[in-house]
Amino acid sequence: MSKITGVTTHDFRFPTSNTLSGSDAMNPDPDYSSAYVEVNTDADDGIIGVGFVFTIGRGNDVVCKAIDSMAQALIGRNVEELLDNMRLAWDLFVHDSQLRWLGPEKGVEHMAIGALLSALWDIKAKRAGKPLWRLLGEMEPEELVSTLDFRYMTDALRPEEAIEILRAGQRGKEERIANLIANGYPGYSTAPGWLGYSDEKMVALAKEETEVKGFKQIKLKVGRDVAEDIRRLGLARDAIGPDVKLAVDANQVWDVPQAISWINEFHEFDLAWVEEPTSPDDVLGHATIARAINPIPVATGEQMQSRILYKQYLQMNAFGIMQIDATRVAGPQEIVLEYLLAKKFNKPVCPHAGGVGLCEAVAHFAMFDYVAVSGTTENRVIEYVDNQHEHFVHPTVIKNGNYMPQMAPGNGTEMTLETAQKYTYRG
Amino acid sequence: MSKITGVTTHDFRFPTSNTLSGSDAMNPDPDYSSAYVEVNTDADDGIIGVGFVFTIGRGNDVVCKAIDSMAQALIGRNVEELLDNMRLAWDLFVHDSQLRWLGPEKGVEHMAIGALLSALWDIKAKRAGKPLWRLLGEMEPEELVSTLDFRYMTDALRPEEAIEILRAGQRGKEERIANLIANGYPGYSTAPGWLGYSDEKMVALAKEETEVKGFKQIKLKVGRDVAEDIRRLGLARDAIGPDVKLAVDANQVWDVPQAISWINEFHEFDLAWVEEPTSPDDVLGHATIARAINPIPVATGEQMQSRILYKQYLQMNAFGIMQIDATRVAGPQEIVLEYLLAKKFNKPVCPHAGGVGLCEAVAHFAMFDYVAVSGTTENRVIEYVDNQHEHFVHPTVIKNGNYMPQMAPGNGTEMTLETAQKYTYRG
Repeated sequence: MSKITGVTTHDFRFPTSNTLSGSDAMNPDPDYSSAYVEVNTDADDGIIGVGFVFTIGRGNDVVCKAIDSMAQALIGRNVEELLDNMRLAWDLFVHDSQLRWLGPEKGVEHMAIGALLSALWDIKAKRAGKPLWRLLGEMEPEELVSTLDFRYMTDALRPEEAIEILRAGQRGKEERIANLIANGYPGYSTAPGWLGYSDEKMVALAKEETEVKGFKQIKLKVGRDVAEDIRRLGLARDAIGPDVKLAVDANQVWDVPQAISWINEFHEFDLAWVEEPTSPDDVLGHATIARAINPIPVATGEQMQSRILYKQYLQMNAFGIMQIDATRVAGPQEIVLEYLLAKKFNKPVCPHAGGVGLCEAVAHFAMFDYVAVSGTTENRVIEYVDNQHEHFVHPTVIKNGNYMPQMAPGNGTEMTLETAQKYTYRG
Repeated sequence: MSKITGVTTHDFRFPTSNTLSGSDAMNPDPDYSSAYVEVNTDADDGIIGVGFVFTIGRGNDVVCKAIDSMAQALIGRNVEELLDNMRLAWDLFVHDSQLRWLGPEKGVEHMAIGALLSALWDIKAKRAGKPLWRLLGEMEPEELVSTLDFRYMTDALRPEEAIEILRAGQRGKEERIANLIANGYPGYSTAPGWLGYSDEKMVALAKEETEVKGFKQIKLKVGRDVAEDIRRLGLARDAIGPDVKLAVDANQVWDVPQAISWINEFHEFDLAWVEEPTSPDDVLGHATIARAINPIPVATGEQMQSRILYKQYLQMNAFGIMQIDATRVAGPQEIVLEYLLAKKFNKPVCPHAGGVGLCEAVAHFAMFDYVAVSGTTENRVIEYVDNQHEHFVHPTVIKNGNYMPQMAPGNGTEMTLETAQKYTYRG
């Protein structure tokens, strides 16, 4: 028996605005940041659970404060009781009625819950000696589903259906695990596409990412000027040829009517998707856009607040691709539920990543999906940007444009001591 | 010319969980709280701008932290420049691209923005020597609309339409102001309805609020047990008779299918509305419920995150009554926009109140609507609970069940020094 003895947060900030890496039509100068949390126990296994929220700078201190404030409820708790019944841990935060007022289930508080629950799942995976993707993929369907919260979900997905999906996912699981370990999971590269880059830099990176690194898809930021977008898309398509997929990302800059007319200028480029055409909160707006720009698929999710929004997007067929972010919702349990929803409605998930720690984090869920839920990587790719991986003890490894699965126990988002010392924000 | 010299936050908490006032099916033991902010300038008018976020306890410190962190951008700013162009102040916070990541436009950060913008509008109203309802009601349509942000709104409401609505609202304005000052604006009472109350206390309060205090509507909390709800509704209907309106409030406890079957047990009670049947984030779910429980109207809004959600509820006809909360969205500008949306789609707004400071705050917007937007109080009532008004310098005054308009300059939410000393939270 062990107890939780302490929860420590760290405000890490990286000065990415210096290079315009990460710049898009909505976010001209992000400073990639992490509200990072460590959960300590009195067990003598030396295990520290880590979790984080990715942010782009200002306000990272507010997320740290939210985690600190909320974490008081964990101190002194029996660790095994929580790990054996992760639904308890979920309820402790998500159903704290006083905290619920500050959402419900959205924004800073929800992200903070996600960091804490991730840290607990990290301890669970480390104790089991498994990487998180494998822990989730190898849990019994009933056991995994018992950790999930179906409140507000039952008009779209009931627990019995979730168990059925996971049972069906048992077939061929061992082969898929072997295939994953041998070949990895397809990635795509956003590296060439930042709006702040010159044409030359964009074209050179587009060639390098596809010809040298082996990615089968790249993505370009758009939305500042339609003529300029068309020009850059032409350059990019020429650079990569017709066989590499090309997606675009508007980062929410358009209103609904504007999105429709703008995107309808892009049909010649055979786009894999158009991402975040408008506010992620506008389900109806996305449904309208999706109908009007067909056959270009709509993709969104990096700022989707919760499973309740995903449910509606799926019910309304308001997008073609779900882009779950690993640190916006309430941790592994909500992400697993979202993958099950996606499977029920037959939509591919292509996780959002790129921000510091996100590549390391999201790969576990995409791989869990391949192993135990959808059973396929068809039409599925994980975003990749070759930035800030050096801060991690187990950084993402890419081979031939594929994410190689993490083999170390845990969720793979532990940062190095050197980074902690160098990038701690001092206000 | 003056400058903003300081922004101070206060974490006020009131031990309301001791009495179960405020208890409902989702919130068994709230401690009504206020993340309260004061904005100081170096002008020699002695004016301090006040704003606040109402919360129900834990996490109030996180809201204070969010306000503090964000307020750094205000220090040293030219006051007149902001007050003459409140759109600048809005952009400073709502369109801060780094802060936007933490929402966008929802949760703790959005509420914190609301407190700061409220405090600036409070200074503007105090300098004009007018209560906020009158300042808003007497602004020129073009001037008021120039302060509003139509991003993500143009598929539902364009600036030209907003100006037209306000122009139409000029007719008869002076008479309505005179009528308001003489007679007030209709309120309704939630005082009898908390779930923690005994039958005797509920019935006695139902009679007192209607027969003695003159309210024409009361509201009961429901959602813990359907048989118990029906029994209590019978008692309440007997106590108030057929002519007083009766509404119910489930505080989001149901899933969609459950809401439909539960509410369909209530048809005999001639309900004014059923409030918060499920998650406020579920537009589609509310639309489904609204169709299925017709003719009982659905009401929601106290936890509605932004104008983008209201837009969709209106476009889908997913509710009958809009219940804007004064401290959940980004201050007066977003609230004004929401009232204009409601007018465009012809829905009544019945503001959420009751929490500490909310009655004082929301009345200004309902009265602005009466004076300058909808021009009517038909089917419109402001929620009222007779609690915690003693903490305010200008507490809400009720006469014959009507809210009397505040006549003091400002937004009317300034708290007393005695309260500040007594209820400051010390952790």
